[in-house]
Amino acid sequence: MDGEKPVIAMAMGDPAGISPEIAAKLLAADAIRNAADIVVFGDRRVLEAGAKVAGSRLDIDVEADAADVRPGGRPVLIDLQSLDPASIELGQATAAGGQFAIRNFLAALAYAKAGKAGAVFFTPFNKKAMRLAHPSYDDEINFIRDALSHPGPASEFNVLDSLWNARVTSHIPLSKVAESITQERILRSLALTDASMRGAGFARPRIAVAALNPHAGDGGNFGREEIDVIEPAVRAAMKQGLAVEGPFPSDTVFLRAKNGQFDAVLTMYHDQGQIAMKMMGFDRGVTLIGGFPFPICTPAHGTAYEIAGKGVANLGASERALLLAAAMARSRVAEAAAG
Amino acid sequence: MDGEKPVIAMAMGDPAGISPEIAAKLLAADAIRNAADIVVFGDRRVLEAGAKVAGSRLDIDVEADAADVRPGGRPVLIDLQSLDPASIELGQATAAGGQFAIRNFLAALAYAKAGKAGAVFFTPFNKKAMRLAHPSYDDEINFIRDALSHPGPASEFNVLDSLWNARVTSHIPLSKVAESITQERILRSLALTDASMRGAGFARPRIAVAALNPHAGDGGNFGREEIDVIEPAVRAAMKQGLAVEGPFPSDTVFLRAKNGQFDAVLTMYHDQGQIAMKMMGFDRGVTLIGGFPFPICTPAHGTAYEIAGKGVANLGASERALLLAAAMARSRVAEAAAG
Repeated sequence: MDGEKPVIAMAMGDPAGISPEIAAKLLAADAIRNAADIVVFGDRRVLEAGAKVAGSRLDIDVEADAADVRPGGRPVLIDLQSLDPASIELGQATAAGGQFAIRNFLAALAYAKAGKAGAVFFTPFNKKAMRLAHPSYDDEINFIRDALSHPGPASEFNVLDSLWNARVTSHIPLSKVAESITQERILRSLALTDASMRGAGFARPRIAVAALNPHAGDGGNFGREEIDVIEPAVRAAMKQGLAVEGPFPSDTVFLRAKNGQFDAVLTMYHDQGQIAMKMMGFDRGVTLIGGFPFPICTPAHGTAYEIAGKGVANLGASERALLLAAAMARSRVAEAAAG
Repeated sequence: MDGEKPVIAMAMGDPAGISPEIAAKLLAADAIRNAADIVVFGDRRVLEAGAKVAGSRLDIDVEADAADVRPGGRPVLIDLQSLDPASIELGQATAAGGQFAIRNFLAALAYAKAGKAGAVFFTPFNKKAMRLAHPSYDDEINFIRDALSHPGPASEFNVLDSLWNARVTSHIPLSKVAESITQERILRSLALTDASMRGAGFARPRIAVAALNPHAGDGGNFGREEIDVIEPAVRAAMKQGLAVEGPFPSDTVFLRAKNGQFDAVLTMYHDQGQIAMKMMGFDRGVTLIGGFPFPICTPAHGTAYEIAGKGVANLGASERALLLAAAMARSRVAEAAAG
């Protein structure tokens, strides 16, 4: 299978921001068309409106049913006819917009789950619209978990240029972080990070583990989790052959990674990584959701309502997200073929 | 008193790193000599060794006793004759080095406490050496609290260019942070930040308050401290006339401050601010300890053992720290004269 293009299922995200413009621009980009066969789930009228904003031509096939797709040619839109662009008010989060994004996303996930695509990519969602459409919507991971009936460990990775960030805990109160940090969870996160990064082309990713407490606990003076939990987990991961080091004080570990000493940083909680990554310009970066049977990628930035319809959306992060999805899908195919 | 130079008590820090070199360079710098009358506490031989490394001439007076100082002329060294530089091994943290730094610091604090200096400045300490000399040494604030018998609120401020960072909690385990965040503490931190910044020349400092939880708690989904504690404290501070806003998600608040929207960020815990400040280059910055009867300043960087004795130490942060101490001392004198 080596050399063959992977199939990527693309879900059109929130229609009121830059998502339709980005989808149209991606489908017109040679780098994307050369890297993957794209099957888009959305609405033809919304995509055409996006192409108009983007000033690009839609050189695609359109099918009503995903069963009719024959990959290998032009990108294919599965026209779910789910939203009339005349009903969209740009810059407004609506239940209709959320329903559109959810319907497309569920169709893309189902397509990949059926083995027809090697990865899923989606243009940005708007959280408020998602909640209007689906009140229990917390974050993508829990939504995907439900959609795929997949109870196993999953994690969000933030990728900026060649630096990865994963976290042991994420959307929980800070007061619950310390008690949620266990050796088992750290080991699981390290294994998932290592596997995901190998899938993205790292031969042996060098992972730095952040400490939990200030000054890494200062030898136990400001907390013992480093001594009792994190260090033993790092040692256990090393024994398993992973290229892991730490724990390191979290206020300098990203500087070291930025200087090239590490390929990834595993943080203990959400803001520990997000403060550093956003300071480094993570809005240019990629979010990868790993741990499911196939990788799921999206640009790190949001729907950018303030520039919707202007044709000025930057394609960089979306292009990198889709190329990462394609690289990981190819690697999965190669692995399956090898073994 | 306007226009008159303030007196700054300077304590020589750890002798095995760049501290002696920095002290000698500062005493030779016109910007420093013009801004303040400096009274240095240390050892003549160590300072002379520093001047030799710095390649600068020591144009100072030397006295054995602080009682003999007549400010207004050249910088004055109070020669405590406490350390023979021949006994120092560069790059080594020792109890003797720690004792030297502690003795100088205590003398400088006592001099300022007696009303003879308007501020204290110290060249970097080495924490390991401080602990070898004084096993219960935790951090500067607790040490100063003991030395001055001053039980009141005190706080460390980090100053990078014109951006200030203060924190509600500091050297405590992350597991204790949430329970330590109270309206009273936030209000106290805001009042101290406002007062310190006014003392440093801000007419009405604009202070952003960071949230505690990811996404500022996401409306209560990931923690309620924003709703129950931080927002009410911000409102109360506004009522007191402070230019305060927040709480803001901690992964973007520093980007907004960096863009000029705020003069200061009050963070809830140590690494929340330190990750961002160090990413922005806080090693070039200044640490100010506020809340005591006089301001205490030091460069944010450490003893830099790896470049000790080479004459390449950068003076920038130390110069800014001493000039901040001088500005705040002048402001205190002006305030006392006015009122």
